[in-house]
Amino acid sequence: MASVAVIGAGAVGSYYGARLAQAGHDVRFLLRRDYDAVAERGLRVESHHGDFALDHPTIVRDPAEIGPVDWVLCGLKTTSFDDAPVLIRPCLGPETRVLAIVNGLGIEERLADALDTERIFGGLAFTCINRGEPGVVHHYEYGQVSIAHLGDDPTELALALDLWRDATVEFSTASSVLRARWEKLCWNVPFNGLTVAAGAVTTEAIVTDPALRAEARALMEEVVAAGNADLASRNRPERIDGNEVITRMFALTDVMGPYRPSTLIDFVEGRAIEVDAIFAEPARRARVLGVPTPRLDQLTALLARLDPARE
Amino acid sequence: MASVAVIGAGAVGSYYGARLAQAGHDVRFLLRRDYDAVAERGLRVESHHGDFALDHPTIVRDPAEIGPVDWVLCGLKTTSFDDAPVLIRPCLGPETRVLAIVNGLGIEERLADALDTERIFGGLAFTCINRGEPGVVHHYEYGQVSIAHLGDDPTELALALDLWRDATVEFSTASSVLRARWEKLCWNVPFNGLTVAAGAVTTEAIVTDPALRAEARALMEEVVAAGNADLASRNRPERIDGNEVITRMFALTDVMGPYRPSTLIDFVEGRAIEVDAIFAEPARRARVLGVPTPRLDQLTALLARLDPARE
Repeated sequence: MASVAVIGAGAVGSYYGARLAQAGHDVRFLLRRDYDAVAERGLRVESHHGDFALDHPTIVRDPAEIGPVDWVLCGLKTTSFDDAPVLIRPCLGPETRVLAIVNGLGIEERLADALDTERIFGGLAFTCINRGEPGVVHHYEYGQVSIAHLGDDPTELALALDLWRDATVEFSTASSVLRARWEKLCWNVPFNGLTVAAGAVTTEAIVTDPALRAEARALMEEVVAAGNADLASRNRPERIDGNEVITRMFALTDVMGPYRPSTLIDFVEGRAIEVDAIFAEPARRARVLGVPTPRLDQLTALLARLDPARE
Repeated sequence: MASVAVIGAGAVGSYYGARLAQAGHDVRFLLRRDYDAVAERGLRVESHHGDFALDHPTIVRDPAEIGPVDWVLCGLKTTSFDDAPVLIRPCLGPETRVLAIVNGLGIEERLADALDTERIFGGLAFTCINRGEPGVVHHYEYGQVSIAHLGDDPTELALALDLWRDATVEFSTASSVLRARWEKLCWNVPFNGLTVAAGAVTTEAIVTDPALRAEARALMEEVVAAGNADLASRNRPERIDGNEVITRMFALTDVMGPYRPSTLIDFVEGRAIEVDAIFAEPARRARVLGVPTPRLDQLTALLARLDPARE
């Protein structure tokens, strides 16, 4: 049994933390907005794999109450990533590992720099999870997570996989964190981006509109080209198989129904949207690498302006 | 003195029609929404060149009441261009000329086909005009119109210029209707498009945001490339001077203040936006010509979805 701190218990952090608790781990949730609701009624997960609840989860308002743990599960949005070090540090011991189930590019590097450790993992979650009323998480579809390690160390990856062995979650390991991050962007860039920019519509509106579907595909092609240039520039031998990834992303999304990606929910609820990690940072890397990404550039500029938290 | 029918007396049609009436021409306005207001209070123009009013303009509800005239001034939006033939035809005699002060591509050809005449002119208005309360037009800035002829006939152009000789409007002639149309799109594509897609903002928000300004420039470059390929494919010797046009468009827009292009006003007021003539048709021509226009394509797909009149 491992001790686990969930820092950033939004929809994703709460869901995967609850799955670890369900599997018997000692999970401690840092809560802010939902503290009172969860203290009163517990944490409920309404999942297409079957509903379940943690009636009396360990919850705290201050990470100092959690103390050093085996694993930190970080579910913070990148828009509050500046808070990550101060929230995570009280939970770190000499052996603590940090798994960030967070979208975007440069996540592991930022955490490694801020926390001064190499025991950093990225979790690429392909899942449809939204927050419900306080203390309730809705899990509609999918749920698989691919875990990558900052240094692509197979021994570390085996340890990470072991944590999730008894959890009702389909986990796999990715041999290349950089490739895994870019592949995930092949979904996030078109679907998190176009659903907002097309006027707050669902993924279904994108895949069923021929022109927007073509734009989603073209955005994916830009991401693949930039990602492969990024891999090549770091002398990595692995590449993104664009055809395979694009086909898979559409196949998964075509059966998703009217799903609202996290960025769309943040947008319609007036919260900061993850422009930098999902859009601007990949666009910057592409520019440095000399890969033209005209669609990504335009989308990034539009989203930066549409961002409710724009200064 | 010429007889003139104004068909499509929105902001632009009303303004230029009023300028012709002010210069002494016999101008007859086809009105629908504003008929009662103008019958009661006349037509007022609040202009930065000085306010003026037509107290008792000739107004009708049915173009048959206008009858054949020397000139038809067409100010219809392209979104109601299907109505143009039936509205204009009652005003046509054997010598009637039609001037369409309308944005977009393919305007003259559509009118020539529908009306079976070659006496068709395009008016490229560079002006900031918005409708006010019924019967009132606000003219904020600029006002110059470049007139082009369907067949680029200099004799015809001289006749058109003559109509406007005594009007308080800066008119000039364009030797190439095709080049003039594409040059006008260098303004309309970025500014009519991005002001809508960036979340209903003014032109000032585009030119003062470095990322959006860069996107506006990049869109202009796509339009220039497509326009020059279009000219070349028709064996026309003239070309768009991209640097000159782009510099001029920004210079004009930088001093425009928080202007709302017509497409933005249509959008925020829930009316159909001119997606086809301003965005989709240029994108289609570029595709046929093999000119990549990724930004225009994405913007077109977003606007088609954002169009309040989307089916």
